[in-house]
Amino acid sequence: MPLLRSWVDTANEANCSFPLNNLPYGVFSSGNEKPRCGVAIGDRIFDVTAAEAGGLLSADKEPLFDEPSWNKVMAEGPRAWESLRARLISILGEGSTDQASAAAHLVPLAMTRPHLPFRVAEYTDFYAGRNHATNVGTMLRGPENALPPNWLHIPIGYNGRASSVVVSGTPVRRPWGQLKGPNDAVPRFAPSARFDLELEIGAIVGMPSVHGQPVTVAEADEMIFGYVLLNDWSARDIQAWEYQPLGPFQAKATATTISPWIVTKAALEPFRVSTPQRELALLPYLQEPRPLLYDITLEVGLTPDGGKETIIARTNYAEMYYSAAQQLAHHTTSGCAMNTGDLLGSGTISGATKDSRGSLLELSWGGKEPISIADGSRSFIEDNDTITLRGSAKGKGYMIGFGDCTGRVLPAHSDLYARTDQRSG
Amino acid sequence: MPLLRSWVDTANEANCSFPLNNLPYGVFSSGNEKPRCGVAIGDRIFDVTAAEAGGLLSADKEPLFDEPSWNKVMAEGPRAWESLRARLISILGEGSTDQASAAAHLVPLAMTRPHLPFRVAEYTDFYAGRNHATNVGTMLRGPENALPPNWLHIPIGYNGRASSVVVSGTPVRRPWGQLKGPNDAVPRFAPSARFDLELEIGAIVGMPSVHGQPVTVAEADEMIFGYVLLNDWSARDIQAWEYQPLGPFQAKATATTISPWIVTKAALEPFRVSTPQRELALLPYLQEPRPLLYDITLEVGLTPDGGKETIIARTNYAEMYYSAAQQLAHHTTSGCAMNTGDLLGSGTISGATKDSRGSLLELSWGGKEPISIADGSRSFIEDNDTITLRGSAKGKGYMIGFGDCTGRVLPAHSDLYARTDQRSG
Repeated sequence: MPLLRSWVDTANEANCSFPLNNLPYGVFSSGNEKPRCGVAIGDRIFDVTAAEAGGLLSADKEPLFDEPSWNKVMAEGPRAWESLRARLISILGEGSTDQASAAAHLVPLAMTRPHLPFRVAEYTDFYAGRNHATNVGTMLRGPENALPPNWLHIPIGYNGRASSVVVSGTPVRRPWGQLKGPNDAVPRFAPSARFDLELEIGAIVGMPSVHGQPVTVAEADEMIFGYVLLNDWSARDIQAWEYQPLGPFQAKATATTISPWIVTKAALEPFRVSTPQRELALLPYLQEPRPLLYDITLEVGLTPDGGKETIIARTNYAEMYYSAAQQLAHHTTSGCAMNTGDLLGSGTISGATKDSRGSLLELSWGGKEPISIADGSRSFIEDNDTITLRGSAKGKGYMIGFGDCTGRVLPAHSDLYARTDQRSG
Repeated sequence: MPLLRSWVDTANEANCSFPLNNLPYGVFSSGNEKPRCGVAIGDRIFDVTAAEAGGLLSADKEPLFDEPSWNKVMAEGPRAWESLRARLISILGEGSTDQASAAAHLVPLAMTRPHLPFRVAEYTDFYAGRNHATNVGTMLRGPENALPPNWLHIPIGYNGRASSVVVSGTPVRRPWGQLKGPNDAVPRFAPSARFDLELEIGAIVGMPSVHGQPVTVAEADEMIFGYVLLNDWSARDIQAWEYQPLGPFQAKATATTISPWIVTKAALEPFRVSTPQRELALLPYLQEPRPLLYDITLEVGLTPDGGKETIIARTNYAEMYYSAAQQLAHHTTSGCAMNTGDLLGSGTISGATKDSRGSLLELSWGGKEPISIADGSRSFIEDNDTITLRGSAKGKGYMIGFGDCTGRVLPAHSDLYARTDQRSG
């Protein structure tokens, strides 16, 4: 597919993240105004809340954009998603008869701040990157037992905490937790010293499933509304002590940062690729009816306080062993109902080479091999470091960008409950 | 505290679950009417949605009962909870001047059906019963390594699935899942053959906490609105294969049944007891500022299809090693925000004796020692068995009952995706 041209000139530039082919969905505000729904186009946001109120969109129906979230659109299902996208392409495309009225609803993106684009219902995080699972397993159990026995059969996942999800730009406070070194007799309660990032892609469930009725992989793919970049912040020292036998809990609950724009499945359609070759066939209920991954190049930047950014990892979403649709189908096997707004983290995306690993745990090999950055070195995240995830799918003469997924790590509270007491008092 | 007498005569009977001292909160409907909020009193429900609309309750404020859930009340906080309870005691108590107008809003409980009493925000399940953890650990790792090393320090928990929560009476369909026996080369996809119950108490978070700001145990206790009985249905064979390394996932996602009535913290106040003696002191942030458990006697009934009920376990909530307030405080240590409607499962409640174990896994010792029931024996749940949890706190001349928490297990779908295809077609 070639570049679709827009009358918003900046959308036609080759290095623009938001050409007419993309049209990602977000929620934004400017000044003291209330957050509203918008679509990114070039260096502008098309304010669909205002456009709908003005009669330019779906005037014959119940309002979709009268609340600051895309959940209503998500719940409408694939036919409504298609017709909305077609209408937006018609309004914002070159030669549009709506240009004059639509232009009144364009806002400079640089003048706005992002909000969460949807209400997160529940959040599930997976462990579906083979290189990541192999690296972590090698550190924990040695190379012979790196992959758990179930790993090649099940998209391993755990339920995360929806209340941890924040939009890009939100500062992240280094957490306290129970820590216990291998030689300590008892644990202590202290700030995490091994705070880490995880480079992931988040899939957003649009259409719900019915409680008690599992869905096929093909149906699961249809239920997915779109994708975001996702940083699954992880306190490795808290995790090491707490995670047996029931999995990660507080280690993953501090924050989960997502990029501000939902990149729709439709925009990513030209970039579909298959999951990798397998030495062990999957059970039929997990098999892939069509290519379910996407060719999305990804990178992670680390910027020290007042310093220069170093790109610490470059990889691709196509590295995943299980796709979001396979994860979602597996998620319903027990009869579990999936709802509009459910968010599925892909699991950490790591390539085969050392410079393509999607976490500092892997990049520094558990802290034993600190990596060099422009202003020093890192084993784990230091206070006031900013972590930025970026991603894009590259077409011929255009790209589908996700927008930055960024967060700065603030120092831990010095006295955790003193603050709490002030709040109550 | 003695029995508080009500003008609803049945509320004054010694074996009544719902005396004036209790006043539990639920959502009910009768016939084709919409679900509405109610308070159980004797063999009646006081329809607070109608009472509020009629001006008998909080007429000077925004309506609290115009939606079929107690979330609005929960979000109001402890002072509002106290004044609502005081008002209800005044309306429904002997000698009330509101008797005539309130009597018009009484509905016979037997003519109604229950609905979920609140919108579940997120669901966390703990593993805080020492006998249960010891029993399960002994089966898995032998008696020397029964308790995981962190168990005496951390209230171990995992995030469950809020969409799995259903109200008492909802049938539960036996799930399919990946199963692999110790001698199987590869897993197969089939119905669970080791479907089980777990006897728990659920704590309901009323007041939210602030993202990034942990709460103390005392604050956590204040945030809790009330308690329900909770059956954490568990597919042991699915769990055994999936749970390493990230914890239970589909094994616990089929359904989580709760009793219909929220028993408030205020009603349970006279029954507070301390958590047990500890050989290892807890870290200060987990210590108990006052008694945080409750003396609630519990039992589990199993009724085969068309058969007679056998009580398969009798125990007490006071067996727990960690209270809900300690679990909730731990849940916020990472900065995790807790919200109105969050539900915390206590973990399986098992006593020290064989007949006080809160799961069939323990009662039948992993299926090796089937238990006798009136009409045969059981290792795990069989199709069309009904499981009923009951609980009450016993005062002098009255009791605080929870109402049954019941569910019948339907046979697994014979062809899982054939049904799905019919649904789509």
